[in-house]
Parts: sequence; C-alpha cells; structure tokens
Amino acid sequence: MEGSAAAAPLRTRVCIIGSGPAAHTAAIYAARADLKPVLFEGWMANGVAAGGQLTTTTAVENFPGFPGAIMGGDLMKRCRDQSLRFGTKIVAETVAAVDFSARPFRVVSDKATTVLLADAVIVATGAVARRLSFPGSDAYWNHGISACAVCDGPAPIFRDRPLAVVGGGDSAMEESSFLTKYGSRVYIVHRRSTFRASKIMQDRVLRNPKIQVVWNSVVVEAFGGADGDGDGGRRLAGVKVKNLVSGEVKDLQVAGLFFAVGHTPATEFLGGQLELDSPSGYVVTKPGSTHTSVKGVFAAGDVQDKKYRQAITAAGSVTCGCCRVHGRFGC
Amino acid sequence: MEGSAAAAPLRTRVCIIGSGPAAHTAAIYAARADLKPVLFEGWMANGVAAGGQLTTTTAVENFPGFPGAIMGGDLMKRCRDQSLRFGTKIVAETVAAVDFSARPFRVVSDKATTVLLADAVIVATGAVARRLSFPGSDAYWNHGISACAVCDGPAPIFRDRPLAVVGGGDSAMEESSFLTKYGSRVYIVHRRSTFRASKIMQDRVLRNPKIQVVWNSVVVEAFGGADGDGDGGRRLAGVKVKNLVSGEVKDLQVAGLFFAVGHTPATEFLGGQLELDSPSGYVVTKPGSTHTSVKGVFAAGDVQDKKYRQAITAAGSVTCGCCRVHGRFGC
Repeated sequence: MEGSAAAAPLRTRVCIIGSGPAAHTAAIYAARADLKPVLFEGWMANGVAAGGQLTTTTAVENFPGFPGAIMGGDLMKRCRDQSLRFGTKIVAETVAAVDFSARPFRVVSDKATTVLLADAVIVATGAVARRLSFPGSDAYWNHGISACAVCDGPAPIFRDRPLAVVGGGDSAMEESSFLTKYGSRVYIVHRRSTFRASKIMQDRVLRNPKIQVVWNSVVVEAFGGADGDGDGGRRLAGVKVKNLVSGEVKDLQVAGLFFAVGHTPATEFLGGQLELDSPSGYVVTKPGSTHTSVKGVFAAGDVQDKKYRQAITAAGSVTCGCCRVHGRFGC
Repeated sequence: MEGSAAAAPLRTRVCIIGSGPAAHTAAIYAARADLKPVLFEGWMANGVAAGGQLTTTTAVENFPGFPGAIMGGDLMKRCRDQSLRFGTKIVAETVAAVDFSARPFRVVSDKATTVLLADAVIVATGAVARRLSFPGSDAYWNHGISACAVCDGPAPIFRDRPLAVVGGGDSAMEESSFLTKYGSRVYIVHRRSTFRASKIMQDRVLRNPKIQVVWNSVVVEAFGGADGDGDGGRRLAGVKVKNLVSGEVKDLQVAGLFFAVGHTPATEFLGGQLELDSPSGYVVTKPGSTHTSVKGVFAAGDVQDKKYRQAITAAGSVTCGCCRVHGRFGC
C-alpha cells in the first residue's frame, strides 16, 4: 500500500464502499447529515456493474413505493441520483484493500489510484452470484453458461433453443420464467424433490407449460459443439444430468445453462480484518445494528445478510451507529 | 368481544394491523407469498389518516428511490396500491382489541364490525405525535394549538401571524421551516441550549431569518382572545414562556402553537398481551428480528422502534418470521 506510486491520501469523515440499496441509503442519510461521504461504487467490482445485484435483475415488484414495478437498474439510478443530490462524492473505482488497524482508517482503490483516510467506514459491498464447477463449466463459461439469465438470456444464441436453469430458490424460479420468453423450453435442474422458493413463484413456474422440472438431479458435465461461425470456436451444446436417486445419467440438449444457486458475500478485500461468519464469509454484525467487530466500521445490506437479501431490507439495515439522520456515530 | 352483536369471524393466515411503510411492506411480501393477508388500516386510528405519520408530513427526501423527493401521502398511496395489486384485503376499520391467548389469534375492530381469526398477526401500528399539557392546552386545542404543523399550518388563521413550535428535534426543525411559508415569524421554544436535530436541518433553521429560537424555555400557559367571528368563541392569542435558567416568564403573542415533541407508540389496543418497553410502551422485539413475546405475533416499524423512526427503516424492518419472500413463519 505504501510506495512512491501511491496517491496523496484524501481525508473524509465517512467512507462508504458499495453501490447497492444499502450503500446509497447510507450515502443519502450521511450526506443529509452534512457528513460529506465519499462512496466507492467500484468499476465492475466482483463482476457486477455499479448499482449491484439489482442491475442484473429485471422488474422489481416488491420494493415499496413502486406499485407498477421498476427495473432494477432504474431503481439504482434513482438512488444514485439521490445520493449525488445531497452531496455524496462518488468514486468509480474498486476498493482493493483496507487498513482498519488504526484510525483514521485507510481505504485504497485498485492500482492505488485513490487513497482515502476516513473516521468511519461503511461496508456495503453486497454479495455476488455463485457458479458451479464440473467438467466443461469453465470451457463453456460465457459460451452458453451464465450466472445471470436476465443479463444474458436475451442473447441471439439462446433464441428458440432449449435452455436449463440450476437451482430451487426464488432466483431459479424468476430466471426460468424469464427465459421462457426466449428459449423453446426451459428445464429446471434441482438436486432436491421440492423447491425452497416462495409459493407464488413456484406456482408461476409449475403452471408454465414451457418449463419442465428435472427433480433430484445435478449437472455433472457440460459438452459443446462448433459455434457455427466458422472460426473454430465452440459453444455449449448440452449437459449431462445425473439423477441422485436412481444414479442414472442423461444428456440434456441445451444451448444455455444458467446458474441460480446462491451468492457469495464480497468480503475478500477486507483481508480478514473484520469478523466474518464461518464458512459463509458474511460480515458479522451485532443483531439489529450495523456494528462490526471493529469500532467505527459498520456493515449494511447483503454483505451482512445471508437470510433475506431483499433490496428493501438492505436499505432499511442502514441504522444508527452508521449514518442515521442525526449524523451521530457509535451511538 | 362475545355477544349477539358480534360479526361471524373471518379466517385468515396473516393479519396485519397498521397502514404505514412497515404495514404495507409486510402486506406486499405476504401477498406475493400467496398468504392472502388481511390488513386493518384503521379509520383515523390514533387520530391519523390511513397511511400513518407520513401522511402528516410534506416532502420526503430520504426514502431511497425518489431523488426528487415525494410527498408523504403520495408515497403511502403508492405502497397501498402495491399491496392491493398483489391481493391484500384492506379493511378500513380500527382494531379495538386482540386476543393472543390462544391460536388462532382473534382481532376485533371497533364496534366488533369485523372479527378476524388469524394464524399470525403483524403489529405495525406505528407511533403518534405527543401533546404537552399546561393551563389552556386543552381549551385552545384545535383553536390555535396543534401537533401537526404540516396538517394545520396552512389554515387562514395562521396566515401572516407570529407562530411558535415546541421541540428541538428534526420534526421541530422541519415544521418551523414549513411554517415560515405562512406565519409572519416563527419562534422555536426549546427547553435546552442545543438542538438534537440533524446538523443539516439545524443549519436550515438557524439561517432562516423568519425563525427565532427561544432557548432553555418551556411553555407554561396558553391564553386566548375572541376568535373574531362574533359567536363568542375564543382562540389562541399567545403563550407564557418560562426561561428555565433565569426563571423569567414572558408573554409570546402567537396565533399558533405547534407541538413537535416526540411520539407515543400505538400499543394500547394490545391490552398488555405483548411485552412492552417500560415506560415508553414500545413493543419489545428480539434484536434484528420481528419476534415479540408471543410466538406467531410479530412487530415491525415505529411501534417497535423508538430510535430511528424512518420510513425506510420501518419498511426494512419487515423480515423473516413475519412475511418474508418465502412466506415461511417463525423461521
């Protein structure tokens, strides 16, 4: 972190790391409390655009205040505008390292472009979609395999072709429904005999004639074929699916495979300086608060929430001790 | 509760009591989880219109997603529409009594118009503005004395007249700023020598040439005069203000006096069946959850939050065990 290439440190009272609903709610409150926060929104941090996971979804129906639904990206654009309106300084760089061993805390962006000294740090870096690993999972990654149906589903290579989704939660339901707009049919490969998704979303899926569930099964291999553009490139042609009850392995001819199997919190950059949940890696906070194991460092949103992962919960998790309306710290 | 006049009980899985951000977020999630919630929004419950405290405010600047601010009433209208969209049944009656001694729980509206049996109850009744008591405070209530500047300030009797606000928090700042649109000048009577309001709001007030702060002082009496419409009625003409440091009492000629001195949680209808905080009366919840002292009864929003009282915090306080996206209870 130290060295001749390092930028001269900037000084701020509050540094916010993240760009989702929690980060921007923190920024709105901190800025209105005249704390002049600096927010690192990242630059494709963890492979996700500024705005976080909501930028990878389509219509958000359950964020209160939007009865007609709102696109995830639009919602985050509005939150970002609101942060800016009250004077938040937004830095479009990804935080690479922090030093919480002494105050002021030190926050350094990748390539040390920005070095910030802050009295308080709010960690709101969220969590990112998980990928599965099996023979062919790397070879066909981005060549038919994706962890974001909403981002990649509309691509021409998936149009009117059979597709598969892996998972059994709300994301798997949402993404498979979404993919029926594009694919000729959609398989949901799920390792259990029941979904853990909400009933309303299960019902939608089970009523959808274009969706077929492959129960008690896992993908064990991905195989490909020529991508057809004559340059020798290959893309996904199908997957081998193993039934965990019968042991039988079958081919599923699909042009796309979409993972919808959960999330990993973005806590690696913390270098073990905050207490993390084991083995999941989420930041541990005192229940009902944003307090972490380091005084003056707070966590809000999905990075400390392995249970709800809702935009409204993330936004509402910004409370006292962090950047509440009164602008007090550590209360 | 029992008697020949009682309505035949209705049956539901989830009953939500309240009409603010917490109540409607609960309704949106419960309805999307196909739990067919019934929501009692009340009828001027606790003297506040359906929609709760937000209906008594003007522009809401800090609810994420509304960069250009939104009127409190408009925000709640949007949340209500969202609840309805997903199938929430809204009852415009005030809950008078509950019976949490056995399951299903029993919820009865005033005059026993509606009797509901529910597997789970979510208490989201919020908190209401507090009134001070001194000689004349009852006599001139609604004749110059109000607890809602935003509701009553625009009345013609206050136009171009001196007005006073009692309090030192964000509400007092917001309401005094608001009243300068109408009154000739606005006094803030505050019993301490500093405000506890957020700095940004203090700054606005202290920069406003129409506002004068009367520090270290309390209102000890309200006095009146003829209301001028010839029917013998009287209305507020001024207040006696005592300086707590010098002991001096002075008259302040004001046509309006607005209380901005905090809130009381709406928990009386619970009849002591949930553990309440003493002496404040807020519902006690397990930190970081909505669990109350009765299994199957949950609390969210201001009725269990004496600290933050923010719309976004109330909305975000709706979590698992209550009506999360998966529609599970007690997890």
